[in-house]
Amino acid sequence: MADAFDTLGHRRALRFWGWGYADEHLGTAEEARLADLVTLVGGGAAIALPRLNDVSLAPSRGSPPDALRAICSATPYDRITHALGKSLADSLRLLQRALPAAPDWVAFPRDEAQIEALLDWAGSARAAVIPFGGGTSVCGGVEADVSGDYSCVLVIDLQYLNRVLEIDHSSRAALIEGGALGPELEAALKPAGLTLRHFPQSFQFSTLGGWVATRAGGHYATQYTHIDDFVESIRMLTPSGVLETRRLPGSGAGPSPDRLLMGSEGTLGLITRAWMRVQERPRFRASASVRFPGMAQACSAVRAISQAALFPSNCRLLDPAEALLNGVGDGVSALLVLAFESADHPLDAWLARALELVADHGGSWDTEAAQRSLRGAEKPAVAEHRQGAAGAWRDQFLRAPYYRNYLTPRGVMVDTFETAITWDRFEAFYAGVRDALGRAIREVTGVDGMVTCRFTHVYPDGPAPYFSFYAHGTDCGDMQAMLGRWQHIKLAANAAVTSLGGTVTHHHAVGRDHRPGGYDEQSPPLFRAAFAGARAALDPQGMMNPGVLIDTPQRGAVAGGVLGK
Amino acid sequence: MADAFDTLGHRRALRFWGWGYADEHLGTAEEARLADLVTLVGGGAAIALPRLNDVSLAPSRGSPPDALRAICSATPYDRITHALGKSLADSLRLLQRALPAAPDWVAFPRDEAQIEALLDWAGSARAAVIPFGGGTSVCGGVEADVSGDYSCVLVIDLQYLNRVLEIDHSSRAALIEGGALGPELEAALKPAGLTLRHFPQSFQFSTLGGWVATRAGGHYATQYTHIDDFVESIRMLTPSGVLETRRLPGSGAGPSPDRLLMGSEGTLGLITRAWMRVQERPRFRASASVRFPGMAQACSAVRAISQAALFPSNCRLLDPAEALLNGVGDGVSALLVLAFESADHPLDAWLARALELVADHGGSWDTEAAQRSLRGAEKPAVAEHRQGAAGAWRDQFLRAPYYRNYLTPRGVMVDTFETAITWDRFEAFYAGVRDALGRAIREVTGVDGMVTCRFTHVYPDGPAPYFSFYAHGTDCGDMQAMLGRWQHIKLAANAAVTSLGGTVTHHHAVGRDHRPGGYDEQSPPLFRAAFAGARAALDPQGMMNPGVLIDTPQRGAVAGGVLGK
Repeated sequence: MADAFDTLGHRRALRFWGWGYADEHLGTAEEARLADLVTLVGGGAAIALPRLNDVSLAPSRGSPPDALRAICSATPYDRITHALGKSLADSLRLLQRALPAAPDWVAFPRDEAQIEALLDWAGSARAAVIPFGGGTSVCGGVEADVSGDYSCVLVIDLQYLNRVLEIDHSSRAALIEGGALGPELEAALKPAGLTLRHFPQSFQFSTLGGWVATRAGGHYATQYTHIDDFVESIRMLTPSGVLETRRLPGSGAGPSPDRLLMGSEGTLGLITRAWMRVQERPRFRASASVRFPGMAQACSAVRAISQAALFPSNCRLLDPAEALLNGVGDGVSALLVLAFESADHPLDAWLARALELVADHGGSWDTEAAQRSLRGAEKPAVAEHRQGAAGAWRDQFLRAPYYRNYLTPRGVMVDTFETAITWDRFEAFYAGVRDALGRAIREVTGVDGMVTCRFTHVYPDGPAPYFSFYAHGTDCGDMQAMLGRWQHIKLAANAAVTSLGGTVTHHHAVGRDHRPGGYDEQSPPLFRAAFAGARAALDPQGMMNPGVLIDTPQRGAVAGGVLGK
Repeated sequence: MADAFDTLGHRRALRFWGWGYADEHLGTAEEARLADLVTLVGGGAAIALPRLNDVSLAPSRGSPPDALRAICSATPYDRITHALGKSLADSLRLLQRALPAAPDWVAFPRDEAQIEALLDWAGSARAAVIPFGGGTSVCGGVEADVSGDYSCVLVIDLQYLNRVLEIDHSSRAALIEGGALGPELEAALKPAGLTLRHFPQSFQFSTLGGWVATRAGGHYATQYTHIDDFVESIRMLTPSGVLETRRLPGSGAGPSPDRLLMGSEGTLGLITRAWMRVQERPRFRASASVRFPGMAQACSAVRAISQAALFPSNCRLLDPAEALLNGVGDGVSALLVLAFESADHPLDAWLARALELVADHGGSWDTEAAQRSLRGAEKPAVAEHRQGAAGAWRDQFLRAPYYRNYLTPRGVMVDTFETAITWDRFEAFYAGVRDALGRAIREVTGVDGMVTCRFTHVYPDGPAPYFSFYAHGTDCGDMQAMLGRWQHIKLAANAAVTSLGGTVTHHHAVGRDHRPGGYDEQSPPLFRAAFAGARAALDPQGMMNPGVLIDTPQRGAVAGGVLGK
């Protein structure tokens, strides 16, 4: 790979066909456990892993002007690692050594002036522009395969805009650049005793700008569920110029400008910086792992907790199948990982009341462990929250994306999707989604798969269930067949979630994968028209991330309109 | 008035030139106290109050089709009570018996089909349409004085769409019609043990749809500050058709459709119903009235509480001037009204920790009263929160809008504006706004006024200060002169808030009055362009509430654009 690796990016080399760094590997124990899963679900021997120069690339089209040439790369590594996100489908395509398309150029701007120059060039060259943070999209959000009248595809990677520019300790806020990775911004906040405390599963590899653009879900199970809640103001570079919102703790002046930019998924412009609400690092913790005789009681308890205004930081319910698969269940009982944390006060009263609600609904827990969690507040390294079922689950949470590196080449299909639904409809929804998914898996693979569910976030009016499925992809190394099976199941999942009343995505974003049968059905047509109207003002040529969220209007039509002038 | 009162509306007759019902009057004790204020600020004898037929109206233009004639009124009462909102300026204009303009027709539709028919007629007749909830706007949000190429002005009053259609007890949510007044919807929720618990000062006379359209501020000082936080989904009738968002507890699917509609202030369409998050009625309360030696310590304490994740329901800080004027201060100390409430659990731990923070910053309180507040939890009628300084303040809060009925005709100018600012800038902001306001009052009246401040809501990153000013308007009954003085002071307030970094409105909305020097300066130009683009998709003719929020594009220009087709 070395010869092709003369990237202009400064970051450690990534595994281009899967998750993580190229030189980072699974441990022996992890592989042994995953081998069991291959046996259980039914896979085969691993196919040979691709090397970078196995992937053939068409010559780059277009040509950046001399002034920008030094920040634009067309190396195979840069083009291939910026061609797709990190979904299962993306891996399958790269394991086949075939890319539907790669960007012609990957730019690594050092500042906003360079981004503006890139947008100017792209506009005059009729190039499509794809903003790129960490590239961890699992829904086709950063894809160079654009349709339409574009002369070439330019990816703009924001990795050099990765600083924390300013900290306002009094207001507990920080001005952070859009390209900062999770660990980068946390490292910069830590000396001040502060944290953004937004930990999506992709934390290590995703960026602030990406989180804001996709309305990422983070650490908190309640109250501050999306990155949205931490945004004070946003600065976005659009093809029409700079859009910077006013930094305020709250406002009621017209529709919120920030809320139009959040979730725009690169279709309006690039987020170069944002003022974010940060927090003091937590000093007090309380937690319990609660077992329920079944899912119904567990849901009742979680509903009661979600409506009690206690605001646990973690309220993660594992359904019987999920608990079993994670080694903490018996296949019948459901497990609730309940935790509170505070930078300000001991949490005894909070935990005590939550456990009263748990007891009301038939939950049981280790009283001494719960007590230890309170006593361990000042010594987080040994506190209960890192031990036991809760601790085991947390480790697995952070490692889970790596497991696909083992499973996918062996023909085991593992994928997840997340949603949200009101409590009144949850029971039918939970049954209906699992049925539809199980049926789709059987239809396309001929055998049963596994479907598990957990709640990642909960609201007073409903949970955000997160489904995982495990299915037989192929045992003969046919990655194309596995991709076809995945597409069938994915469409069935979108359709089930839509027909049963959920949202097609609670925090993974829409991208391309959640459009058919999902976003295209769920979003009000007049809202899409309104959003297209707003977009036409910011991106008159329709060059920003075409194909994501909504169809990009034909260039001629937009350019002729009033707003496109 | 009776002869002119053949309205098609069913509601009790309102005082057309001021606040409240026409047959509702101030008490003797209230009037005595207000007389002292007239003496203090310097007013004169009351001018004769206007009668309805003192106000001359031009004949109504346009003519609703026969099918709609039965729901369209052109009586003087309906036209005059729907011509303006309830700001001081609105009162001054009506006390002069002069209206810049009145709507030609006021429609009282009974259902959505009638609203659609009204929009169709308005579109074909080139009429301007003004959605009307309770008409309590204090910022020029419902004004018949529209500029542009409109054949006539049609106000659509939603008062017959005032039902709670459905209650989902499991998810604690209710489907409520847009025209429901605060007391109407609370009365419908009460038998189910539920409450929306959104109590703006206008509660008695304002509607759910109006709250959502203007992003109203409500009961809670923290966390659920705006009505926004309670919205699950919205149904809006726009000139382009129905826009109904999906009912969900949370979602990350693209930019939030609800957030585009919230704050649109009637410029996109009419909100006919919304699924709202409701709550069980609180059973537990805890409160304390805290005195601080000065404003600086009080602010430090409030900041600490706001950042401690304790989420008080009330955290209302009265600055020394505000406390003094409310009869609970000495002109130096600041008063904090602190309260917690819960439907789920006793609040001892919450109050105790908040009072520790208060003590850290030099606050003092009546320990026994705080204890009584906890014990009184099950007997709200005698609980501490309705007694003492907190209780006195609450009564005044609800009565305050009525006081203008006494003060304005006597030439005393009382007005308020609200904003929000981050903590790091608050000290300079507080000093700068009071300076600018005091200077503007002196410039225009020749004498000193009074400026007071309280926090209505607080966020971890900053407070929402609410300023009141009292100024000598006129002592010779010249309401036109008083209006001129008010305009000068209002522009100075907008300019000061803008230059010092605050928002021009935290929850009163933008309307017309907050545009010059305020919203027009503060909102990002590209956001306004994007919003105009969105609006063009929903209201191609630009007929909805023209003049509010943004300029309405010329009809010809829009109609020729792609989005206007």
